[in-house]
Amino acid sequence: MAVNPPVLNPPLPVPGFRVGTASCGVKSPELKGKRQDLTLIVADVPCHAAGVFTQNRFRAACVRMAEQVLADDAEHIRAIVANAGNANAGTGAMERVWSQGLIEAGAAAAGVAPSQTLSASTGVIGTPFPIERVQAGMHQAVDSLAPDNWQAAANAIRTTDTFAKWSSRRIEIGSAHYTLTGIAKGSGMIHPNMATMLAFVATDAPLTAAELKPMLRRVADRSFNCISVDGDTSTNDTLLVLAAGIGLGHPPLADADTTMFEQALGELCGELAQMIVRDGEGVSKFVTIDINGARSETEARTIGRAIAVSPLVKTAFAGSDANWGRILSAIGNAGVPIEPERIALWADDVHICDKGGVRPDYRDADGMAVFAKPEFTLRIDLGLGAASARVWTGDLTHDYISINAEYRT
Amino acid sequence: MAVNPPVLNPPLPVPGFRVGTASCGVKSPELKGKRQDLTLIVADVPCHAAGVFTQNRFRAACVRMAEQVLADDAEHIRAIVANAGNANAGTGAMERVWSQGLIEAGAAAAGVAPSQTLSASTGVIGTPFPIERVQAGMHQAVDSLAPDNWQAAANAIRTTDTFAKWSSRRIEIGSAHYTLTGIAKGSGMIHPNMATMLAFVATDAPLTAAELKPMLRRVADRSFNCISVDGDTSTNDTLLVLAAGIGLGHPPLADADTTMFEQALGELCGELAQMIVRDGEGVSKFVTIDINGARSETEARTIGRAIAVSPLVKTAFAGSDANWGRILSAIGNAGVPIEPERIALWADDVHICDKGGVRPDYRDADGMAVFAKPEFTLRIDLGLGAASARVWTGDLTHDYISINAEYRT
Repeated sequence: MAVNPPVLNPPLPVPGFRVGTASCGVKSPELKGKRQDLTLIVADVPCHAAGVFTQNRFRAACVRMAEQVLADDAEHIRAIVANAGNANAGTGAMERVWSQGLIEAGAAAAGVAPSQTLSASTGVIGTPFPIERVQAGMHQAVDSLAPDNWQAAANAIRTTDTFAKWSSRRIEIGSAHYTLTGIAKGSGMIHPNMATMLAFVATDAPLTAAELKPMLRRVADRSFNCISVDGDTSTNDTLLVLAAGIGLGHPPLADADTTMFEQALGELCGELAQMIVRDGEGVSKFVTIDINGARSETEARTIGRAIAVSPLVKTAFAGSDANWGRILSAIGNAGVPIEPERIALWADDVHICDKGGVRPDYRDADGMAVFAKPEFTLRIDLGLGAASARVWTGDLTHDYISINAEYRT
Repeated sequence: MAVNPPVLNPPLPVPGFRVGTASCGVKSPELKGKRQDLTLIVADVPCHAAGVFTQNRFRAACVRMAEQVLADDAEHIRAIVANAGNANAGTGAMERVWSQGLIEAGAAAAGVAPSQTLSASTGVIGTPFPIERVQAGMHQAVDSLAPDNWQAAANAIRTTDTFAKWSSRRIEIGSAHYTLTGIAKGSGMIHPNMATMLAFVATDAPLTAAELKPMLRRVADRSFNCISVDGDTSTNDTLLVLAAGIGLGHPPLADADTTMFEQALGELCGELAQMIVRDGEGVSKFVTIDINGARSETEARTIGRAIAVSPLVKTAFAGSDANWGRILSAIGNAGVPIEPERIALWADDVHICDKGGVRPDYRDADGMAVFAKPEFTLRIDLGLGAASARVWTGDLTHDYISINAEYRT
């Protein structure tokens, strides 16, 4: 079902990190031994770290506790422990107890303190968390710890994802080489409840927590916050980055090198984000939306997202219908001041609208030919300024309805 | 396809008003004589009037011009002229010319000034407006002007609506009786573009424009702004109220009587709004969402709307799936401060959640039985205050996708 899933080179090991997985039967005991559902990422040295978390005001315990760990000390993080199969959310007072149990089990397995450990959970909501099964399976994750296990981890965090998602980058700074490797999961949300967007990035570059925090916010805004499958945000969405470089004794980066690192991190997260859209529930088209000529990047992104989440636009994509009126209307619904008579619209190289209306020489067949493709780009010029943003989205199909209305486990 | 469309009593004539319709073949010349598509509402005396218009920043010329007419003089309105079949939107510089042409034709037919005439258009976007066909057909509308023609008008403003929508009220103030009659159309948005929500209300009660303006805003916020079919807002949405009472020589209302009138107008608009949801594209369920315990009515409505537009919630409705986790998540996504651990949820009389999580004694079968019904009520208590709001929505079905992705005229 995924739209042109990329053929990926194997993920690169990251100096200072080992990764292990286990099969605990988190979702159900019968799945134990059949699919990996627990991931342990261990750093050999304390890492500087940062996180970006769901904006949903119902936040699972793992999100609240990871935020707290990072707030207390983001400069000595040693482990991430993550499970699929149960989101540990919506279960009342036990939620926090179970989340603490997951952190403690992961920390003990990694031989580090709970205050150095971040956890993340994804899967079914409202079902008691099987902490005993996770505790019982943790030794498998420890036994399998190895530097080259990132692909296994990318598989172990999957829920409804149809393919494992990872991306690696190498950057050269002076005479030093640094590696970034990230894994992600997420394909919309699914019954019995929210599947979650998770992404973990490890690097041996010497970034400080103080540098990473604002950087990760900016990177998330240009990657994971620029995608839309169904416009909903889960209770558990988590993006974490761990940088081992300071602990490994590398000298801090100069400002220009930090910028180079941010660019690499941004590209990596952008790739992961696009993979999530390609794997979106029921998605049959992958559409890039470029907003140019905005007064600010924030306004550009707001308009791009308004187009990306509009059910009318997304059903038009599904129907291969170059319905430019719905796109203009979605722009008008974004809540951002615009001047309609300045707006121009292209689909790939077909110029459909200018001055806020359809061009006299536009031929419907030309637009239709673009919208019939599995991948295309909408380009909008607002005519207001020099800022721009890029957003990725999919279409809204019968398969989405089937998955979300009819699927029962 | 509509969910339990109400069996309506005939609309009541309103003293001081006559209504006529015509078949102009607006959408296509072949439809001339086959379906009514032009409506003319004429007041015998100058009316005090008010309007509420789309918040979409792409606003059709008819909306901009009606706003201007009301801004110039809202105390001498004599006519509304409305067409279905062509939205006169997205057509560039001619849009305003054609809208002016429609107003002038309607004003001439009604024997009043253009400055006393409001227009509204609904239908296809981006197609040249057939002003000649409208001008040619206008005499039919004049010839059919009659006090008891409201039902014909409710039919003539339909586009994809499967049933005509109207509502009437009589109120008694002292020894006087006043009538309110309203008509509406709208069932979502449809290819080739936005279908529009239109509603026109006429009354012989002696309200002033100064009273009507804030009142209509409040009424709209509690009726038409509390419904969601697909969360999109058209370029042409228009709600107009004309009050002939002052012109008919009735004495102004006392404050308490104005309040009574507002309540009647609110009930009438609420009925029309609910009819639009029942007739929503592809809708198979009608769901009332009551938000209680909010800090303010605005926050309650914002949360209700967030639930009402969530694709995950709406597909759960379609699948008869009591997916309470998606509802909690939608509440968390509304952007309103909440305290999750205070939130309670009921579906009809089944108490599903309290303290932000599922109740231990909740049985899934009980929730499922409610969600399987064609109509039910979700009740949420936020536990934060005493304010409340009510929102109406439908489900998101395969039929919605089919209508919006596959329908081509």
